[in-house]
This record gives sequence, structure tokens and C-alpha cells, in this order.
Amino acid sequence: MGGVDRHLSDLRGIAIVGTGLLGGSIGLGLKAAGFAGKRIGVGRRIETPRRALELGCVDEATTDLLAAAGQCDLVILATPLRHFAGLLTTLAGVATSSAASAKNPIITDVGSTKQQVCADALRILPAHLRNRFIGAHPMAGSEHHGPDNARADLCAGRPCILTPMPDADPGALAVVEALWRTLRMRLVRMAPREHDHAVARISHLPHALAATLVGAAEQSGSLDIASSGFASTTRVASGDPEVWVDIFRSNREEVVGAIDEYMAALTRFRELVATDRELDLAAFLRQSQAGRDRWLQSHRPPAEPH
Amino acid sequence: MGGVDRHLSDLRGIAIVGTGLLGGSIGLGLKAAGFAGKRIGVGRRIETPRRALELGCVDEATTDLLAAAGQCDLVILATPLRHFAGLLTTLAGVATSSAASAKNPIITDVGSTKQQVCADALRILPAHLRNRFIGAHPMAGSEHHGPDNARADLCAGRPCILTPMPDADPGALAVVEALWRTLRMRLVRMAPREHDHAVARISHLPHALAATLVGAAEQSGSLDIASSGFASTTRVASGDPEVWVDIFRSNREEVVGAIDEYMAALTRFRELVATDRELDLAAFLRQSQAGRDRWLQSHRPPAEPH
Repeated sequence: MGGVDRHLSDLRGIAIVGTGLLGGSIGLGLKAAGFAGKRIGVGRRIETPRRALELGCVDEATTDLLAAAGQCDLVILATPLRHFAGLLTTLAGVATSSAASAKNPIITDVGSTKQQVCADALRILPAHLRNRFIGAHPMAGSEHHGPDNARADLCAGRPCILTPMPDADPGALAVVEALWRTLRMRLVRMAPREHDHAVARISHLPHALAATLVGAAEQSGSLDIASSGFASTTRVASGDPEVWVDIFRSNREEVVGAIDEYMAALTRFRELVATDRELDLAAFLRQSQAGRDRWLQSHRPPAEPH
Repeated sequence: MGGVDRHLSDLRGIAIVGTGLLGGSIGLGLKAAGFAGKRIGVGRRIETPRRALELGCVDEATTDLLAAAGQCDLVILATPLRHFAGLLTTLAGVATSSAASAKNPIITDVGSTKQQVCADALRILPAHLRNRFIGAHPMAGSEHHGPDNARADLCAGRPCILTPMPDADPGALAVVEALWRTLRMRLVRMAPREHDHAVARISHLPHALAATLVGAAEQSGSLDIASSGFASTTRVASGDPEVWVDIFRSNREEVVGAIDEYMAALTRFRELVATDRELDLAAFLRQSQAGRDRWLQSHRPPAEPH
């Protein structure tokens, strides 16, 4: 299994904009799968792509997105979300300059929310490039960051949600699907709004709970005896704050809605304990155990160091 | 490092009452450390200790606690909490029958709450045995259960909280400390009330959060795209419901208090998001990240399969 999907094998090059944990891992994964084109790492400052180059994540390092995009058929936006609008504005420039060419770059991203970036792409990109933007959310990451923590298999076995617009170019979509499939991800298609609703509940909410739990446990002065359960439950709270501020801000309504739903559920749990309803409490815990075990059996993600 | 602490080397035998994940692991860990005495596995039904015997967790299997305690100098209660009062009542019988002997067994337990069991021990055990009860909470476990998941190193590197009564027999305390130290645990001394307050916040609350999160995520229909972050955050929810019902019930007030404090903290987090206070949100996430990373550096528990 594995290898480069045929839709990727024709590409001259792939620009990876942002060569942190995820961008770096995409570069390593492409190489490991046998991608023969050029991998160009792009950063605002040269230090990060240069480090990614030293680590073998990319073949070239630059700060010049325009030049990199000109040499590549696929551009992957892998920075924190706050930079996407600026990057799309720059890419609109390169696209205009090559409007007559069949070589207009295809653009995808790794953003953890999709409504905002898809709206930005529609608004910012020129007509001939707009339908070559295919939003994506590879659900791979870890609490560690930077290219030094990149791994060729970071994406393998995990879900990647694609949110193509209804008028997306089928060729562009095929290439972007090929990218994530080459990294051995499980593709799922969703509308941007549906995506943001779902990830608020299975990714952003867990992060909010974990970050709040660390704060509450610190405040209680009880951390000295915390053990492996606490370590697992809070693992994601060690994630990059810069990345997560952007995620919460760009998915504000859904996150607030998910927290409200959750607080209602936690209030019900609290009542089961407070009123000592043994049988209902047991039934609830059995349901949660069975629900998680069912999920693990059908969706088990690869093991994650903690 | 390792090996049997000298206070354990004189013991004729150790009775392990309840040979599930933790009891089985204690048996394996004692053997691995070189404990030369007899390890007797005791169960209400013979099947579990017999399985533990097949797996090498114990040297003998029985359902007769009285007989086992008569042959042993140390009894470890490792069943779910609900059985403790009954087991102490039985042990009160064996103690009376050997009241004149210097061989009165020392009793310890693995209960996740300590006020109730320590009160039960005071109430149920006869005077000459009461000060030989040393409450303990080895904070080791996993979401897997039963002797088949037992591991010799389950306890290694983790905290073990001891809650001896003020008039505890120093010799008994030395033996119980030796037990957990032989299993390579980090000993922490606390009062029962202080223990229950702390574990409500770093163990019982995380379990409540995880179990509630599984239920909420299932209800939202979004589990199909959940990934490794969700797996970590909810790992403990796969724990044995029978064990956890008892824990929540025996620590009701502290659990309810911990949930209330947590909901107040989560409400503050929700406000940071809802009102888009970027800098405060960033500061909060940085604090949580730093708090967890500090904790990991000083208390890193061994890696846990998920």
C-alpha cells in the first residue's frame, strides 16, 4: 500500500506555506511516498523553512510565496488561520499574472475551521482561480509543534475533511484528494458549515475542556498527585496557543454552542451524582464506555505519544 | 534500583483480595521484584483468582478470605469500593480468632476514595487490628480491566497516597510503605479528607468530563471525524463502570463541588470566546499549556497505551 497517487505524479512542485509540525510532516510524508516533484517550504521568516530543509521536510526554503507558487502546481496553506487571508491575497496576484496559463496553481489548506477560509477564498481569489481552491482539514496533529517534531506518518490513518465549493474544478479536486490520499488519510466530504459544527464538538470542545481542566487543577493545588488519567485528558492542552486562539476565534458561534450543550450534559451528570441515583449513574457510565469502545473499534486513530 | 524492600522480605504471604487489573498487577509486580512469600488471590467467585493464577499473578487461588488471611501477614483489598465493608467485617472475624498472636494481619487497600474506607475500618475492625489498617490509593490503572490486562509495571513511577490514622502502628505503616515502594510507586502522605478533595479534582472530575464528552459527541452525530485528540481526552471513559459508580458515590460531595468549580471556570472560558477577547484567550491558553508542561516535567507518568 502507499505510493504517490497518479494525480500527483505530474506535478512539478508543491509549495508548503508554513513548515511547522503539520507542514513539515506533509513534506516528509510526500517524500516517503515517493513524490518526485519539488517541495518548496515557504515562511514569513526564513528560519522555519530553512530548518525544515535541514530536516528533509522540503527541498527548498524561501520567504517568497509569489516565486514559489509560480514554480508549483499545488499550494498548501499550513500556517495558523490568521495568515490565510493575507496569503490568499498574495496568491491572487500570482494567479492574475498567469491567468492565460493552464498552470494556475491549485490551492488547498489545513485550517481547522472551514467557513471562514472558504468565504475568504471566494472573496479574495480571482474568478479563474476561485474554483481551484479546495478547502481541507487534515485532522492530524499533536501537542508538539515545529518542524523538529514532524513525522512522515503524522497524517496516516486519520480523517481528512474536504469542503469543496459546488463549482469546484473536478481536476483540482482530484489533485487535492490525491494529496491527502498519498499521505494515507481517510477522506470525508462535508459542507464548510457542517464541518465547523462537527469539529466544534469533537475537537474544539475537547480542547476547551482540557485547557480549563489544567487551570482548575492548578488552582486546586492538587496537581502533585495527578497521574496518567489526568495526562491523557489534558494532553491537547499542551497544543500551540497561537494555533488555538485562531481556531476558537474563527469558530466562535459553534464553540459557544458546543460549550452550552456540554454544560447542560454535565449538569445532568452532576445531578446523577448529587442525588445518588446509582442505577442511572451506572447506566450513564456504561453507555459512555460502550460509546467510546464502539468508536475506537471503527475509527481507531494511530497511537499518539503523550 | 528495585527489588523487595526489607520490610516485605519477612512476610509469609500476601493476600490480594480482588485480582482484576490492579490486584493482578500488584501480584505480577511483587513477583518481578523478587518477593519470595506466597501470593494468594482471593475472589468472591473462583474464576477471577483462578485466571490470575494461570497468568502468574498469584501463587494460589481461593474464595476463602478467612483462610487466606490466616496464612498471610498482609491483606490488600483490591475490589471495587462497595465490597470493602463486607471484607473488613470478615477480616474482623479472623483477627478476633488470632487476637493473642503477634501475627495479626496488616491491612491495606487500593480504594480511590479514602474517607469512607478509613471510617469503615475504624468502625468495623476490633481494637487490636484497627491500627494495623493503613489506607492507600495507588494511582495506577488504565481503561482496560481484568487480570488479562495486568502488567508488572502498572504501578511503577506513579503516585501512591497513604492515609494512615494518627494512631497507626508504625510497624504496619512500614510494611505498607514497603509494599508500594517495592512496586516502585512514589509515596505521598495525606489525610483522608484532603485526599478525597484532591482526587475529586485531578481524577474523578476528569472522568466525569470524559464520560460526558463521549455522550455529547455521540449525540451530536460527529464521532465519525473524531481523531487522536478526542481519543486521548476521552480515554478514561473506557474505564470499568462498576468501579467508577462506587468512586462517584463514595465521594459525592467532593465530586459535586469539583464539577461546580469547573463549570464556573468553563463559563469564564466561554465568555472569552463569546466576547472575542483575543488577548485574554491567548493568555489563558498559554497559561494552560505552560501549567501542563510544568506538571509533565516534574511528574511525568509513564506512557499509557490508549
